[in-house]
Amino acid sequence: MNKKAAVVLAGCGFKDGAEITESVSALIALSEAGADYSIFAPDMNILAIDHIKLEKTNEERNVLKEAARIARGKIQDIKNLKSADFDALVMPGGFGAATNLCSWGTDGAQAKVHPEVERVVLDFYKNQKPICAICIAPAIVARVLGAQGVTVTVGAESEASREILKTGALHETCPVDDFVTDREHRIVTTPAYMYSEAKRHEIFKGIRGAVLETVEMA
Amino acid sequence: MNKKAAVVLAGCGFKDGAEITESVSALIALSEAGADYSIFAPDMNILAIDHIKLEKTNEERNVLKEAARIARGKIQDIKNLKSADFDALVMPGGFGAATNLCSWGTDGAQAKVHPEVERVVLDFYKNQKPICAICIAPAIVARVLGAQGVTVTVGAESEASREILKTGALHETCPVDDFVTDREHRIVTTPAYMYSEAKRHEIFKGIRGAVLETVEMA
Repeated sequence: MNKKAAVVLAGCGFKDGAEITESVSALIALSEAGADYSIFAPDMNILAIDHIKLEKTNEERNVLKEAARIARGKIQDIKNLKSADFDALVMPGGFGAATNLCSWGTDGAQAKVHPEVERVVLDFYKNQKPICAICIAPAIVARVLGAQGVTVTVGAESEASREILKTGALHETCPVDDFVTDREHRIVTTPAYMYSEAKRHEIFKGIRGAVLETVEMA
Repeated sequence: MNKKAAVVLAGCGFKDGAEITESVSALIALSEAGADYSIFAPDMNILAIDHIKLEKTNEERNVLKEAARIARGKIQDIKNLKSADFDALVMPGGFGAATNLCSWGTDGAQAKVHPEVERVVLDFYKNQKPICAICIAPAIVARVLGAQGVTVTVGAESEASREILKTGALHETCPVDDFVTDREHRIVTTPAYMYSEAKRHEIFKGIRGAVLETVEMA
């Protein structure tokens, strides 16, 4: 039987949704690993960000519908996601992970996590199913599971890594093309575009390694 | 000196823009090959397609702004694209390639090609710089260069491959994870999501091969 992974996307676009190269890299790696996957996103509206001017617009978009662009239409509301149906959870990054899936972008270690995202992370964790988190998504894992002493990476030491320490989580520095494994808590993280000037094949290499490790652990 | 590639995107999303996995796969492969790249798209408005219902909406979106989501903001109007600045041209697919970059989606071999896209394809061709076209984008190459007897692939024999023959171009069948090289005309094509049920790592493999070949030829 193929392993089954659930992938949670925060939209489509690095400024207001899921980072696209990170999301696609994770899906390519799951496919390469022979894992089946289903894609989920929250059914919520946000104000779109113009990706040329990098400014907020007044245009409302739906995170689930936008994420469907990456998923090629095959996507479900995160409300339907239960760990019982899967072997692993994968969460790509992008600012959307810090603004739609939680409020880390404004509140750091005091962030509120989207209730369904929090439920899903706890569900996979309690059932000892591995969680792979990419870029800023490890901050969600830290916010939900910091008290458990999980270890994650968001790359180099930074404001983000210092906020992560405030959640109770540990932070390990990591280059863009590598990943960090917390075997005890079954958490795999890779920094990806936390290195904003990284090259796309380096992003792919780090995410591919993290996803293959996660599938192996599942 | 690194080779330089120009990448032309038709938006962001397989139903009304550039196919996202194809676009990202091409960018990862260019990066792996050590090539620098710049990303371009036409500055034009389209009616967005809902990627869950797969139905047309009344919402206008700008192709250049949407493509900027894949490009992470670093994108230019295709009007600024000249072959003199580059060594190769790469065109991912998606329905947007057949509806925004040309009218192949409705007119087949009689398609009108967006004037700037036609100019760019002719410019690279006349200057003997290789062109890599993915998925349905080879139809654009066939429409512009069919009279030159170029050889392309859109995968298996299909309505699309039969329309391509009407342009004067030749068609070679090709599996999803491979590519076809026309050395005489310096055209490299790979079918990608012309096989709509293909797995993402197969899509990546075919595009990676095509892009590495294109960069080598440049």
